[in-house]
Amino acid sequence: MAWKDHVRRVEPYTPGEQPNKPSMVKLNTNECPYPPAPGVAKAAAEFDADCLRLYPDPNAGVLVRELAAYYQVDPDQVFVGVGSDDVLATAFLTFFNSDKPILFPDITYSFYSVWADVYRIPYQRPALDEQFRIRKEDYYQENGGVVFPNPNAPTGVLMPLSEVEDILRHNPDVVVIVDEAYIDFGGFSALELVDRYENLLVVQTFSKSRAMAGMRIGFAIGSAELIRAMQDVRFSINSYTMNQPALRIGVEAVRDAAYFKQTLTKITATREEAKRRLAELGFTFPDSKANFIFAAHRTVPAKEIFEALKKEDIYVRYFDAPRIDNYLRITVGTDAQMEKLYEVLGKILA
Amino acid sequence: MAWKDHVRRVEPYTPGEQPNKPSMVKLNTNECPYPPAPGVAKAAAEFDADCLRLYPDPNAGVLVRELAAYYQVDPDQVFVGVGSDDVLATAFLTFFNSDKPILFPDITYSFYSVWADVYRIPYQRPALDEQFRIRKEDYYQENGGVVFPNPNAPTGVLMPLSEVEDILRHNPDVVVIVDEAYIDFGGFSALELVDRYENLLVVQTFSKSRAMAGMRIGFAIGSAELIRAMQDVRFSINSYTMNQPALRIGVEAVRDAAYFKQTLTKITATREEAKRRLAELGFTFPDSKANFIFAAHRTVPAKEIFEALKKEDIYVRYFDAPRIDNYLRITVGTDAQMEKLYEVLGKILA
Repeated sequence: MAWKDHVRRVEPYTPGEQPNKPSMVKLNTNECPYPPAPGVAKAAAEFDADCLRLYPDPNAGVLVRELAAYYQVDPDQVFVGVGSDDVLATAFLTFFNSDKPILFPDITYSFYSVWADVYRIPYQRPALDEQFRIRKEDYYQENGGVVFPNPNAPTGVLMPLSEVEDILRHNPDVVVIVDEAYIDFGGFSALELVDRYENLLVVQTFSKSRAMAGMRIGFAIGSAELIRAMQDVRFSINSYTMNQPALRIGVEAVRDAAYFKQTLTKITATREEAKRRLAELGFTFPDSKANFIFAAHRTVPAKEIFEALKKEDIYVRYFDAPRIDNYLRITVGTDAQMEKLYEVLGKILA
Repeated sequence: MAWKDHVRRVEPYTPGEQPNKPSMVKLNTNECPYPPAPGVAKAAAEFDADCLRLYPDPNAGVLVRELAAYYQVDPDQVFVGVGSDDVLATAFLTFFNSDKPILFPDITYSFYSVWADVYRIPYQRPALDEQFRIRKEDYYQENGGVVFPNPNAPTGVLMPLSEVEDILRHNPDVVVIVDEAYIDFGGFSALELVDRYENLLVVQTFSKSRAMAGMRIGFAIGSAELIRAMQDVRFSINSYTMNQPALRIGVEAVRDAAYFKQTLTKITATREEAKRRLAELGFTFPDSKANFIFAAHRTVPAKEIFEALKKEDIYVRYFDAPRIDNYLRITVGTDAQMEKLYEVLGKILA
């Protein structure tokens, strides 16, 4: 049938598996091992289901204002979306319309090339160096836009803020997106540069540090002009993306700064302990500033370890891709989950 | 700055106003005047906020299976999204990639031209006839795809299913989207044609008849091949669009068929009474099979009535557009809301 000739064909992207067994240790999708702030459960319990008959605020005002207050920017500098994937996809569609290729690392968040493909955006992927670091000079060439995560995924490697600024200084004519999904776990955010670089878009998410992967909330902060352009595109696709529960309950994840910091302290402490324990077990890894560790074993192939862990209901992430096919991305769980991991790894590697 | 040269410029779409005053009569955005099914409130009260730390099921399985069972199709024939706007936008992006113009009526849901613009899809808009009916023959010409609402919006006019099928018969080579946002209020759904036309996509929503505008749930039903193509595109943009509350609470709006029918009976009875009362007040309107009436007054301009109602905290919708700028779209509310409307209209028009 001729209609098939005009279907937008894409390389079907398969999301990571989301197993759901009571006994499992789930360290495969970088979720937070601790529940959201107590205010979240309270707001959920008090949620008035009758209000669901009404459309939500298309401007997501309550959430935008809360984020603006927390990050000390104006509300018109804040964009919220259905997870940072929605925010990033909207930014790609809005800003990457040049004939020149956009630039992002060869090893990075796998969605960048998928969005580029679906929106027909040309791209080039400069290689990370041997220590999995982004080489800032690779981003000084002419391009149609720049995007990279900081810390990078799935490596966990943090770029110093001074180097982020070097990239910005060399790219005044394109939009530069810094994807900070993992910044809260020990990095320095580029948010402080937003007022000096009107072409800088910083993207963050509630899915990791704020324990809200299930609510689908991401946000971007940048100059009012960048944000307005994204809003115009969003309103041209779906005016009401954030549902009532996301607005009313999500806002509580921002309000409780003390709980937020306490969660981050626990996760980073567990991560640092994990570095010691995994090294003892014979793993090597770049130093991670994220809530995961990207580790290769000195002698046993990653895929073998991945399969053996799965048999014991321990789920980590394995990428069958060039340069990284001997690594495992291990999310930092609770101390108890990690002890279970070390114990099983000890047996597997014995 | 040069980055501005490569921003995707769109005609900024402004969503309809969503006033929120306790005393107002809100008849402007076709929401359901009754709350969602009792099971919705129960599921909301029982919602476990701790599960929010985990990603939702990217396949939205629980909701897809429930809809498949209700509409007696296979689960692989069902696509769910963040309101029918998300579903329709995804369908436009997936299926409308021809150089030939897509076709939709000149007076119709205003988002069609917005999506076409943002995705750079050429389009033509055959005019409705003098009675605001879609002329099926206009859709027999060569085209890149067809989309229309049935009943049409903002007119409320229903196309007989036999004419929908005539359009399908003349368009085997393109995807035909029937947007049934308002079908439950008295129309005959094209769902029964899905098994015979693999190029037919039927789109519906929870926002009107299921009283869930605030939860943002829409869905499409079509051949497994159509749905797979949309899934591939969706997974290439955002794998996790439906949040945990939408999945766990939304499913309850489908389960309670008795409540659903009871709500529809009440709304259609109120609509039929509204036709009598509005006619008495001097309004004319095409016969509506939706949850709104598209009415012009014999002597008083629509804009004047719109402004006068607003002063009394009664909100209806006015479109400042060719051919329809003397009409008001009045959502069917509760009987009490409608009595208030008739009373105030009586004073305004006296």
